[in-house]
Amino acid sequence: MQSPLIQELIEAFRVLPGVGPKSAQRMAFYLLEQNKNGGSVLAKTLAKAVEEIGHCSLCRTLTEEETCSICQSSRRATGELCIVESPSDVSVIEQSGIFQGQYFVLMGHLSPIDGIGPKQIGLDTLEKRLNDDSVHELIIATNPTVEGEATAHYIQQIALKHQVKVSRLAQGIPMGGELEYLDSGTLSQAFLARKAM
Amino acid sequence: MQSPLIQELIEAFRVLPGVGPKSAQRMAFYLLEQNKNGGSVLAKTLAKAVEEIGHCSLCRTLTEEETCSICQSSRRATGELCIVESPSDVSVIEQSGIFQGQYFVLMGHLSPIDGIGPKQIGLDTLEKRLNDDSVHELIIATNPTVEGEATAHYIQQIALKHQVKVSRLAQGIPMGGELEYLDSGTLSQAFLARKAM
Repeated sequence: MQSPLIQELIEAFRVLPGVGPKSAQRMAFYLLEQNKNGGSVLAKTLAKAVEEIGHCSLCRTLTEEETCSICQSSRRATGELCIVESPSDVSVIEQSGIFQGQYFVLMGHLSPIDGIGPKQIGLDTLEKRLNDDSVHELIIATNPTVEGEATAHYIQQIALKHQVKVSRLAQGIPMGGELEYLDSGTLSQAFLARKAM
Repeated sequence: MQSPLIQELIEAFRVLPGVGPKSAQRMAFYLLEQNKNGGSVLAKTLAKAVEEIGHCSLCRTLTEEETCSICQSSRRATGELCIVESPSDVSVIEQSGIFQGQYFVLMGHLSPIDGIGPKQIGLDTLEKRLNDDSVHELIIATNPTVEGEATAHYIQQIALKHQVKVSRLAQGIPMGGELEYLDSGTLSQAFLARKAM
């Protein structure tokens, strides 16, 4: 017995990740009852973002301009290219401040079963960029999942073909982690990659 | 180093209840990367809802029409009026199917400290409705919180003045609940309101 438009709005909220029927209803009622202004700003910003945001022509990350601010910046080292799966990975690496080079965003990982091959994750664009030979090191930062590892391996082959140095982020015990709660895969990696001190 | 428009979108998502910076970023990236269509539908529906949805002229609930579907329905008993705090309370009572009368939605509760008095929760409209004398019972279903109880008490006084029968939803042990985990307030209410069997 909801009004059809409210029902439609609740359904529309359910596309968001982690939002079930109860949260969707709560969001809809909250905006309509208490924050119409916030709802209206959200609607406008979302419409504009969906309309205007596309991919950076150099690194494939999300941006509303032709090339993103990192690719445009003259303060970033062009020799190091960090390869990540998604724009949120870029933002977490930027927060750490450890990396001063440029990025290449795959927007996914190899997954032949879903029809996602090298071309879908932009590896042809990456190869073109390696041909320019301004890049001297690829730092592969795909996720340590089965698909992420397979993607890393594939990119390693490309790098070898173009005689570019290639590295992978270290695996081991996370800072502040406790051995007791660590999975055995991570622990094995930490043993194998142990460092002399 | 996010693009400004993406940053704006993440900020806009933070108005939603229960959405912090991480979830907001996840929502923004999810829609832009994987579901632009869903994002566009959400933006349109939200803009339309914020624009068109107002309050039912009879019961004050949210609706895009002059009066809501429940107030319009000829199948609902007009003699019983259930008083709730919000439209989500209407929807949960409707789901139970136990009530066949009409509603009156306060859109809040009395809270003098926030400047919310009888007029802000529509009690003047409610009094007008009681003057018509088609209503013979008020069922008060405000939340069993301090403000909800105070509101219930205030409405009870209005009902007495208009010589209308007034009742309050029963309090006690919820179905499927376990005594072990029950708060002592609920347990006391259940003892006081025990029924002969």
